[in-house]
Amino acid sequence: MCELLGMSANVPTDICFSFTGLMQRGGNTGPHRDGWGIAFYEGRGCRTFHDPNPSAQSEIALLVQRYAIKSPLVISHIRRANRGRVCLENTHPFSRELWGRNWVFAHNGQLRGVKQLPLGHYRPIGTTDSEHAFCWLLDRIRHRFPKRPRQAGGLWSWVWALAIELNRLGICNFLLSDSTYLYAHCSTQLSWLTRQAPFGEARLMDAELTVDFRAETTPDDIVTVIATRPLTDNESWTVMSPGSLAIFGAGVRLAEFC
Amino acid sequence: MCELLGMSANVPTDICFSFTGLMQRGGNTGPHRDGWGIAFYEGRGCRTFHDPNPSAQSEIALLVQRYAIKSPLVISHIRRANRGRVCLENTHPFSRELWGRNWVFAHNGQLRGVKQLPLGHYRPIGTTDSEHAFCWLLDRIRHRFPKRPRQAGGLWSWVWALAIELNRLGICNFLLSDSTYLYAHCSTQLSWLTRQAPFGEARLMDAELTVDFRAETTPDDIVTVIATRPLTDNESWTVMSPGSLAIFGAGVRLAEFC
Repeated sequence: MCELLGMSANVPTDICFSFTGLMQRGGNTGPHRDGWGIAFYEGRGCRTFHDPNPSAQSEIALLVQRYAIKSPLVISHIRRANRGRVCLENTHPFSRELWGRNWVFAHNGQLRGVKQLPLGHYRPIGTTDSEHAFCWLLDRIRHRFPKRPRQAGGLWSWVWALAIELNRLGICNFLLSDSTYLYAHCSTQLSWLTRQAPFGEARLMDAELTVDFRAETTPDDIVTVIATRPLTDNESWTVMSPGSLAIFGAGVRLAEFC
Repeated sequence: MCELLGMSANVPTDICFSFTGLMQRGGNTGPHRDGWGIAFYEGRGCRTFHDPNPSAQSEIALLVQRYAIKSPLVISHIRRANRGRVCLENTHPFSRELWGRNWVFAHNGQLRGVKQLPLGHYRPIGTTDSEHAFCWLLDRIRHRFPKRPRQAGGLWSWVWALAIELNRLGICNFLLSDSTYLYAHCSTQLSWLTRQAPFGEARLMDAELTVDFRAETTPDDIVTVIATRPLTDNESWTVMSPGSLAIFGAGVRLAEFC
């Protein structure tokens, strides 16, 4: 199992607090020693940082925490390798271009026989099941929608249909984004939480850290955090139901398919 | 004009010395205030760092200098915007996947009417001439070679033919890599230098910095640096001839088309 972390917000927001909790699971409070990565969207651009080293001891992870990059949409992943050796090209999140947009994907679970799924346009660079699944997903989206659809609804339900197909091969919790929307698919385990006014205190489970969001936010801020397991022990997280797909935009849950 | 910097080496090598010189040109000794980026290959994987801020004042540039990432193949670019606003998605180097390889491209110059060139598979995410040219280049390579050719020679001469086509539209100095080879095309201005035993001292033009490579290397190391303009004033750089394409691998110049 790996750990996923995503964020969708209506203003550029730093994810340091949640990221600090997640990184502890990379070798300290969790067994995910096989690398980590994070993607920060900034407009149509996307910054990604990857490191095959355990996140709890990663210099790059420390940089990311210190530098406090603000972004409205973030996808992060820490890895416990099951398929594919530990190396940079096997480190999530993966990214590809479709319709002139950066698409980013991070996955946890194992997908038996996923490499039998035929690929067309996109090819894996590494050897993980996850990247193969991502390439297949984008190929199928591209095939169904050669151009970016005006209305997102049809695309959302198509992504859900594809997620269900992947579920048949095993466990397929994933976070996916096209730079506007954050798609969160729960195969077995995924939870989310929306923070908005009135803001309060949040206390990390995995580190001695509490933050008072009243001091960090404005009353208009809306920030949703999605994680494999809740990161705080004093807030009420929504546990997603297996097989469901939630779509978030600008901090708000826009739709859920289940 | 922008500034290009590339490195090809037979062992993972840090580029801090050359990078330090280049970064000075981003706002201090040079006018290239409109962002910078760098890509470090590591096996088939690739780390990229981008920043729309001037490199001379960029926190991320300082991180890259301090962190001293070692890589056998690096492409870097600092930007003076002419087409396309200053933002993350317009910051070189650009990257795309072809044949399951990471391709990276950085360009300096202006290409009149390049956006008239038809695109297929690859679409720009930003609005620069350079990214459009890169997408066109990869489309044409993919069209000619649907699969990665066993023999590189045909691919190299095809890239040269495409570079000449782009030259017709204006100025097109570029660095391109498929993770194995570094392609350096000189349209107007590009120089390179190979360092190998016996190593000596090198003195940066753009900063008060001298390094004695005898202390930094082993006798077997071979490192080639390619830059828009020579970065040191006490070594003999090879100035490339306009219209030529040089291909480097493992620190060595493997071929030159002119």
